[in-house]
Amino acid sequence: MVPLLTPAPLQLSCMNSMDFAKVVAAVDIGGTNTVFALVDRAGRILHKDTVPTRSAITCEALVQAVSDRLRLTSKDYQLMAVGIGAPNGNYFNGTIEFAPNLPWKGVIRLAQLFTREMQVPAFVTNDANAAALGEMYFGAAKNIKEFIFITLGTGLGSGIVVNGQLVYGHDGFAGELGHTIIVQHGRPCGCGRRGCLEQYCSASGIVKTYKEIIRNADPEKYNGDAFSDVTSKTIYDKALSGDEAAFYAFNYTGEMLGFALANSVAYTSPEAIFLFGGLAEAGELLFTPTLLSFEKNVLAIYRNKVSILPSGLPENDAALLGAASLAWNDLEKNI
Amino acid sequence: MVPLLTPAPLQLSCMNSMDFAKVVAAVDIGGTNTVFALVDRAGRILHKDTVPTRSAITCEALVQAVSDRLRLTSKDYQLMAVGIGAPNGNYFNGTIEFAPNLPWKGVIRLAQLFTREMQVPAFVTNDANAAALGEMYFGAAKNIKEFIFITLGTGLGSGIVVNGQLVYGHDGFAGELGHTIIVQHGRPCGCGRRGCLEQYCSASGIVKTYKEIIRNADPEKYNGDAFSDVTSKTIYDKALSGDEAAFYAFNYTGEMLGFALANSVAYTSPEAIFLFGGLAEAGELLFTPTLLSFEKNVLAIYRNKVSILPSGLPENDAALLGAASLAWNDLEKNI
Repeated sequence: MVPLLTPAPLQLSCMNSMDFAKVVAAVDIGGTNTVFALVDRAGRILHKDTVPTRSAITCEALVQAVSDRLRLTSKDYQLMAVGIGAPNGNYFNGTIEFAPNLPWKGVIRLAQLFTREMQVPAFVTNDANAAALGEMYFGAAKNIKEFIFITLGTGLGSGIVVNGQLVYGHDGFAGELGHTIIVQHGRPCGCGRRGCLEQYCSASGIVKTYKEIIRNADPEKYNGDAFSDVTSKTIYDKALSGDEAAFYAFNYTGEMLGFALANSVAYTSPEAIFLFGGLAEAGELLFTPTLLSFEKNVLAIYRNKVSILPSGLPENDAALLGAASLAWNDLEKNI
Repeated sequence: MVPLLTPAPLQLSCMNSMDFAKVVAAVDIGGTNTVFALVDRAGRILHKDTVPTRSAITCEALVQAVSDRLRLTSKDYQLMAVGIGAPNGNYFNGTIEFAPNLPWKGVIRLAQLFTREMQVPAFVTNDANAAALGEMYFGAAKNIKEFIFITLGTGLGSGIVVNGQLVYGHDGFAGELGHTIIVQHGRPCGCGRRGCLEQYCSASGIVKTYKEIIRNADPEKYNGDAFSDVTSKTIYDKALSGDEAAFYAFNYTGEMLGFALANSVAYTSPEAIFLFGGLAEAGELLFTPTLLSFEKNVLAIYRNKVSILPSGLPENDAALLGAASLAWNDLEKNI
């Protein structure tokens, strides 16, 4: 005798959890906007959305607003984890710690807040670390286990990957190459010291360099106010149109960057260094002097061995892909 | 019916391999002597022996001479592996590559030679990397998973440990902090560049500093020949007996080292930095200015977090313990 009904409910319940596509939630917290999305293992970005970071009075309220939307969009998926990239994000503590550009003061237990809301594991790290993982998962470093990732934005951020693992250091704060001092008694830095790499090699650094070049050419005629609206983008445009000072500003930036990267490889001997961000978009204008300076300054055993390459991450979605990679990476580490 | 004889041969054979104490062979290849020994997992050094490195015409002959003796001394033990520390030793290739202070030219397949002779796995790395592992296995870094090891000998060698693993880099040449440039257009270095850290912070660096101080104090009276026998040891003795120039030489060395280490922590954010070698034996004379300069120059997020400590390895056996650690480490990694 054959039963009339197969045990359908059991099969259905199995199908529910097996057949829903696995995704992670990626959250990119910035000073102005908090962008979030679902991201699958292939790096597809689904249901991208934005909340103004300062629209919520507390961080708890922001997490709740983001989570409310994520709960809606993720109901047809199997949500595995939340990955968060944030300024001053600390991986080990799952916190944001004393981030000067965010509205919340002190130490914020961000991972805990998201885990409580979403009922899945949540991971936090800083933007540059997240983007380095993004490069490895979805960018140009897919088959590279030893690399340094440099983001040339307003400042200079970095992430170091050794043996396929992001280096967090004992406290979660490894990879602050923007704050290695490359010129003793050099330009003052927001960190309170002088001569930090990011004062030379960043969008704001190249503006300082450009103004210095103009001033040095004719100190008496120099009028700082006339250059108050100069940006790395306008210097780029000027350089392309034949402005010598602008061209030289890129040259000097590349020389300093190449010198700094030559020192960097003596630490972890990477196979490649990836440059990301606005300044890296300048292409040959930046890469040519950087490569020349790198090869001139690097120790012989590293010469002609290290590729300095543009990032393979899309500028607009790099932060989201980074945050998603953080989540995927941690899920896969713990298997 | 009970058999008269238990199957003794089988039991005996089991006992043979089970009861013999496990050891590794440690080999330290230097420009003058090759020192070797058996070392157990607790770091006990057994049957230490020496062969003059240049007594053998070829590297093959040296390996055979060492192996002949190791075969004799290891017959009462279970030999697990051979670990070799050598200048320009490359872990990935198991080779010595173009070592200027050794009599053999080009690339020497050292691991292969030892494996063929001893019929166990053999591993090679450079002296400083081996000593860093030694610090972790048998020294002061037993419970520390993130540290930098600095050896202040004639030059400055280093090994970087991240998450309990030595950083080799993509080519086996990571951790050359002695050849990071800390003074642009600084002192000429044997590597062909200028301003490398080891030109300031090493036994030979402090001699240069001391002579510079004397010369700068009275350039006209300075007679280089009068200082031709100055060593880091004599500068140490002078400093202890109140010689101001000698004291200042240590001060300057510590200042430069502290500055360089402050930059170093921005890479891997270690919990501790260990200083090893002759110059580190100077104790407070070196450590006090190093610590002061480190804390003055380091980025705020690392301040008062990183311990700068003397190595816990015995000066005389550090190289052997390092080579032994390399072998134990690889055996245990592959379990």
